[in-house]
Amino acid sequence: MKERAMDVAILIFDGVTALDAVGPYQVLSLVPGARVRWVAAEPGPKRCDGGMVLVAMEPLDAVPHPEVIVVPGGLDVRPAMADPRVRAWLTAAHATARWTTSVCSGALILAASGLLAGRRATTHWAVMEQLGKLGARPVAERVVEEGRVITAAGVSAGIDMALTLAARLAGPVTAQAVQLAIEYSPEPPFSSGSLATSPPEVVSAAGTLLLEAIRDEAARRPAA
Amino acid sequence: MKERAMDVAILIFDGVTALDAVGPYQVLSLVPGARVRWVAAEPGPKRCDGGMVLVAMEPLDAVPHPEVIVVPGGLDVRPAMADPRVRAWLTAAHATARWTTSVCSGALILAASGLLAGRRATTHWAVMEQLGKLGARPVAERVVEEGRVITAAGVSAGIDMALTLAARLAGPVTAQAVQLAIEYSPEPPFSSGSLATSPPEVVSAAGTLLLEAIRDEAARRPAA
Repeated sequence: MKERAMDVAILIFDGVTALDAVGPYQVLSLVPGARVRWVAAEPGPKRCDGGMVLVAMEPLDAVPHPEVIVVPGGLDVRPAMADPRVRAWLTAAHATARWTTSVCSGALILAASGLLAGRRATTHWAVMEQLGKLGARPVAERVVEEGRVITAAGVSAGIDMALTLAARLAGPVTAQAVQLAIEYSPEPPFSSGSLATSPPEVVSAAGTLLLEAIRDEAARRPAA
Repeated sequence: MKERAMDVAILIFDGVTALDAVGPYQVLSLVPGARVRWVAAEPGPKRCDGGMVLVAMEPLDAVPHPEVIVVPGGLDVRPAMADPRVRAWLTAAHATARWTTSVCSGALILAASGLLAGRRATTHWAVMEQLGKLGARPVAERVVEEGRVITAAGVSAGIDMALTLAARLAGPVTAQAVQLAIEYSPEPPFSSGSLATSPPEVVSAAGTLLLEAIRDEAARRPAA
């Protein structure tokens, strides 16, 4: 039996980090009744960092009242933070959404639209300080739920966030079934998934990798 | 300092499961020197299960000798298993690749091309038996490395596989740095990520979700 479609809007933009968006997509598209819609200020193909392409099929105003908003991050989210179309859509959509969520530096986009003022929220470790400057109360947790807003830490944390959200939307048995369907029983080969558990040489190497990726991304961006 | 580009070919097709491909992409695109290329028997947009779109920018013969092959799965991989272009490319590319890998039911595609004959290999729990019928020796492990072939369990296991591979390609410090860059310190909200840890009602609900998704996917497929 199909329930009434529940719109889940994933906002993308040039420079989005693919896994930030696709982790939640894979979880939420399995929730019965959910209809995931990829939206952007300008629909069409969006260049992800690393070079792959995601496609936004619809403009923002095609989905003015999603039940769920997902805002992924990217290596440089300043253009998305500053885009008045993104801000206007987020503000209005959040007013009627059941859940507004972010992954990674997507929290900075929520914050730039005023949605995290005074709220506990998390983001990628590399921009945690910046999140505080934008008015949120940054906490180094993997998934932070406060009122109708759920924020996730960096990149892969979107999967954990989306499973938490699936339980809110469809109950714990369905959320567990989704977890089993995507066989999410992680066995990371190392324990270096967080700042707290990484030795200094790994933190330093990760900083170098991210800076290199930001440089590559800037080189790929068309001149304004 | 940039090293010589190391081609990583991700094979996609209509019906591919997005996270199977994007998990490894996100990891491998951060490995210094790696150049991830999305290939398909027919380049262009590919419909993923759940409705999103991934784009294969290049035909198979544009990347005849990748260093790394990644074969994701999907809800119904029979068309990819039977495609003579896929079989010919996989057989030839595997002959010169450093690593040939699969995620989820992508293992069935490797097996159909004869690359898993007599080899220990893993796949999604729902098709483990089928993998055995195709001549592999199925083992219920998350990541199985045998010779130059690495197979991963269902969907999300591609992230674990790719980090294991990153360590082989670039050493453990770089692999750990990638893990930190994507903040892969998983905290699944439930323990239902594997058959062994899921109660019967969750296994049953997961089966229903997958059958429903297969039906949706079949309905979306254009008539042949």
